[in-house]
This record gives sequence, structure tokens and C-alpha cells, in this order.
Amino acid sequence: MSTPSDKALVPFVSVDNMMRLIHHIGVEPMLRDLAAYIESDFHRWELFDKTPRVASHSDVGVIELMPTSDGEAYGFKYVNGHPKNTAEGLQTVTAFGLLADVYTGYPVLLTEMTMLTALRTAATSAMVAKYLAPKGSDTMAMIGNGAQSEFQSLAMKAICGVETIRLYDKDRAASEKCAANLASTGLKTVICTSPEQAIEGAQILTTCTADKQNATILSDNMVGAGVHINAIGGDCPGKTELARGILERSDVFVEFPPQTRIEGEIQQMPEDFAVTEFWQVVTGQTPGRTSDRQITLFDSVGFAIEDFSALRYIRDKVKDTPYHYDLDLLADPDDPRDLFGMLQRAKA
Amino acid sequence: MSTPSDKALVPFVSVDNMMRLIHHIGVEPMLRDLAAYIESDFHRWELFDKTPRVASHSDVGVIELMPTSDGEAYGFKYVNGHPKNTAEGLQTVTAFGLLADVYTGYPVLLTEMTMLTALRTAATSAMVAKYLAPKGSDTMAMIGNGAQSEFQSLAMKAICGVETIRLYDKDRAASEKCAANLASTGLKTVICTSPEQAIEGAQILTTCTADKQNATILSDNMVGAGVHINAIGGDCPGKTELARGILERSDVFVEFPPQTRIEGEIQQMPEDFAVTEFWQVVTGQTPGRTSDRQITLFDSVGFAIEDFSALRYIRDKVKDTPYHYDLDLLADPDDPRDLFGMLQRAKA
Repeated sequence: MSTPSDKALVPFVSVDNMMRLIHHIGVEPMLRDLAAYIESDFHRWELFDKTPRVASHSDVGVIELMPTSDGEAYGFKYVNGHPKNTAEGLQTVTAFGLLADVYTGYPVLLTEMTMLTALRTAATSAMVAKYLAPKGSDTMAMIGNGAQSEFQSLAMKAICGVETIRLYDKDRAASEKCAANLASTGLKTVICTSPEQAIEGAQILTTCTADKQNATILSDNMVGAGVHINAIGGDCPGKTELARGILERSDVFVEFPPQTRIEGEIQQMPEDFAVTEFWQVVTGQTPGRTSDRQITLFDSVGFAIEDFSALRYIRDKVKDTPYHYDLDLLADPDDPRDLFGMLQRAKA
Repeated sequence: MSTPSDKALVPFVSVDNMMRLIHHIGVEPMLRDLAAYIESDFHRWELFDKTPRVASHSDVGVIELMPTSDGEAYGFKYVNGHPKNTAEGLQTVTAFGLLADVYTGYPVLLTEMTMLTALRTAATSAMVAKYLAPKGSDTMAMIGNGAQSEFQSLAMKAICGVETIRLYDKDRAASEKCAANLASTGLKTVICTSPEQAIEGAQILTTCTADKQNATILSDNMVGAGVHINAIGGDCPGKTELARGILERSDVFVEFPPQTRIEGEIQQMPEDFAVTEFWQVVTGQTPGRTSDRQITLFDSVGFAIEDFSALRYIRDKVKDTPYHYDLDLLADPDDPRDLFGMLQRAKA
């Protein structure tokens, strides 16, 4: 067997090692760190190579590749979305990702991203809410208590100072699971029996349900003035959660308009429906919240740059830990022209 | 630590294991097998989800994702192209690939594809030459004696019955390396001092050089009637190997026209330059070679379906061998909604 060179070995973070890394850093510190990395990439949004994700649709789901590059590093995420999976005991969303060096084209990190996507999605929501939610927000309604709900709750605690989570799910067992998981985190949870009850007294309304349909989780008359809506679950064609009237009364902030117009809540609206690109709020080019009465709405679908930020963070953090090992992923013969010779020598 | 379920584990074929698998099967039998898998996917070409590759360009190279799906399986390849890498002791091209189940979205195979791409490229060339090269072809000119040259030579032997390889490279050391590597394969090799000398008596002319420029490896007056040109190295914008006059005198066969018009030899020609999609030759809808005097030209740039065939083959072949191990790549909690609970339990 020939010995691969250093460059032929790609550091790999397994699910098990990702969980160890998360506990090593701490869930809340990691959510804060991720929010900071994501915020810094929103600051330099304009220099990224941006493209809507490359999707392969089937009757039962979608498989997507989400690439982007800042000119020095290149990252992509593989992610599936299969709403019917849950009923079959599988994850709706699984993901892994890769970071590569633009100068050589060689990968420098391969990592699980199911856990990491849950963290980066929550960190993004809370980073955005830091800019848009009413000052002093201490209560969030969490509607839809699936796999993302605890991460959303903890990120809002760690980054925005939220203290109370009002839980609602059409399946009460999901709310009980979420409340139990959050019991030791310092968050106060209240299990509610209707969406109307959940949003009572909440300044931040987070919707994150899984059904693939044009649903109305929040109807127009439920949403009063002076709230921030963090809409997570409207994230693919044919899947929305909010009544159209809410969008008409809100100031809508998005990640990457060409993708959000296809996948987000605003797929319900005309093509010229006014939205603000959130990066312009981060850079100060556009105001975020401008009045106490305003309804702000983050129509979040998840964008490749957020995964890129998460990949950068893992590359930086995992380096000095034991939470990775090397994969022999790249053939790298001593003489680059002698790939066949490398193969022949391996026979011996 | 929680135990991942079977579905959370993805079989991984490292470079070392790929080389063991190749020797276990044998290089020539594997080239024949791969050609058969590729040919069968060309037969059902129309049912594939096809898209030009998704490229991220920089000053020094390109990183590409090449996805495709037949509706049951989904595959993609990550591949870079950095011509300057060779001078720095790195591979111009490195690659890895993934196969997933369309029904669940879960990956079922992760594999190195630097070695595998070399094999599938050669298998594709020879499969095409089987249809297009003059009957009884026994001699190939191999112009450009880099990493692909031995694989091309052996595939033409295994699949088309070629016996003699006439080698030319502007760096004689590359030809000597190729001749030495082929010494024990049963192929006769002749090192030539010019392209003109290399093509003497050859029925198949293979060009596979690495410089990123519009070069003229074969000039118009060098190419006589009744040959098959296998043009490998014209494979990205600004990189061609053949004089325009050759294209005008040839019947040109391509993989996927929207990609070849950007990347192949025909990037030199008007947008309506007539080409034949090679899959139509495989299905019998269009004739291949129709006369002894004809010049046939396979303008090969490499297409995602060929990688898909190779991924299918590795999935089928590696199953009953020890040449893979499982990667803990996908988080898969017992209750799909309880990702956070899985994370919490991992702390214990």
C-alpha cells in the first residue's frame, strides 16, 4: 500500500464527533459562535458566488446541492427534504457538507451536517431576530415542535435573551418532548392547546411545521402589531405557513430573493412583491425595525452562505480537538502524472 | 454515545480500498464492466434528469458538481480542475462521488473518484470507439501521456482489441513513464518524437493533453480519411486540441450538447454546428460509422451519467467485499423529531 500525502487526507467529522464537539463547546456558546460567523458572512455578502440551490425533485422529496464560494474557500451542502420520511422512522432532512480550498481544488473538511444544519438554522433565526425583534423581547411562541424547535428556542435564549417559550404542536406529544428536552436549560416552557394561545404575550412568533402543503398556521387576524415573525417552515414550492394577509401587513426580510421567491412564504405573492435583503440590514444600508408597531417577518428558507459559515466554523474549531479523523478520499500520487503507477504499486 | 441505525451509516470506499477493489476485479475486466454499465445507461439516456455541471470558476481552476438521477438513484460527483496543480506536485483533477436513494434521500455510497474517474473516462472512450472506430482497428496514437494515458490504452485493448499504442508527449519522460507502466500489460508501445510520427498507421487517434489553451495538437493536414478521433483534452472553456478544419471534415459525436458546446472541441464552432448525440447511436436511432473513409470524432468532455454508471457499479461490486467501511455520516435519532434528545443523550 502506498502512503497518501497529507493533502490526500481529508479531515472528517462524524455525527458522533459532531455531538462531542457540540458538548465540548456547549450548545449555547456554539449557537452564539455560529451566529457570529454567519453575521460576518452576511457583512461580506456581496463577494460570494451565489446561485439558487441545485434541486433534483421526485414525487416524495427533493435532493439538493447548495454550493457557494468567497473566492478563497468553496463549500457545498448535500441535503434532502422528504416530509414522508418521519412516518417511516427516518429524518425529513439529512445533510453533510464539504469545504475546499479554491486555490488547489482539494477538499479540506467533510462533515455531517444534520446536527450542524439544525444549529445554523437556529443561529441564523436568532441573529436576524437580534436586529428585527422588538427591544426587550422575552417570550417566543414556538409553533411546530419537531426536530428544529429546541434549537430555535435555545438560540433565541442565547442570542436574544428570550426567557419563555410557548409551545404548540397539533401533536401534543411533540410539545411534551420539546418541553422535556428544554427542562434543564433555564428556559421556561408553557405547553399551549392552540396557536392562538401560544402567541399570547409573545413578541417573537416562530413557525416551523413539517407538512408539505399551503397551510395557514397563522391566520391574518391572529397577528397583531409590534411582533417579529420568524417563518422557518415555508421552505419549498407548495409549502407555506402564513396567511397572505400577514405578508401584506409585514416588512419582509429574506436571504436571497431569487431562491425565496420560489421556496419561501412569498411564493404566494406577485413577483415584484417588495422584500429587503437581510444582509443590507447587517451592513447598515437599510434599516431593520423602524417602529414599535411594525410587523417584521423573516421569510427564512436557508441559504448556502449560512452553511458556508458553519463549515468555516467547524474547520476552525475542530482543528485542535480529537473530534475528527482523516479520510483517505483523494488519490495523490508522488508524480501527479503517474496515477496508474500508483495503482500498480498498490498491488504489491 | 447513541448507536446510529443502519441507515445512518454510509458505506465508504477510500482510495486505498478502491485500488484493492480494482486489483481484486482486475483492471481490464473492470474497464469492460464499467463500459457495460455506461453503455446500459446510454441506452436509457432519455429518462435521466440532465443538467450541465454546476461550476465555480476561479483564476486558477474550477470546482464542479455533477448531479444526475434516473428516478431511483441520485448521484453526484465533486471534481476540481486545476491545470497548474501538476507543477505544484498535486493532481490536476481529484474527485469523489456519492450515490443516494431517491425515495428516502439517504446516501448509500460515498467513494473516492479520482481513480474511478480515470477508469470511467477510459471505459467511455473505448465503449464509443467500439461503435465508431474502423473495423479491425489495432493501433492507437496516444497524444499526451499524462495520468489518463495508461487507462485509455488498456480500455482500448480490453474493449476494442487494440494491440499497439504509439505514444507522444512534448515531455519524453511522460512517454517513458507510460511505456514502462504498460510494459507488462501485453500492449506493444512505441515512443514517438512527434504527433505526426505517432499517428502513422493508427486507426484511433486519442488526444489527451493538459495545457489550458486553444492548442492545435492535431492540425488539419495531419488527419487523413478513415480514422476515429477520441478527443479527451478539449474539456473546458478555452481548452481545445484540434484544428477547426478537422471538425469540419468529421462527423462529430457528443455526450450532452448543451455542455459540449461550452466545454468541448466544438466550442470553436457556430452554435448550430451539427453534432450527433452518442446515445442515439447506442439505441440504434442514428448510424455510427457509415463508411471506411469517414472521420468520426468523439468530442468527449465527461458527463454526469458516466459517473452515475460508475457509482452504480461500485455500489454493486463492493457489497460482498471487505473494500469499504461505514461512515457515521447521518444523524438518525430513534424518534425523527427528537434530534435534540439524541444530542442530549450523547452527552451521557
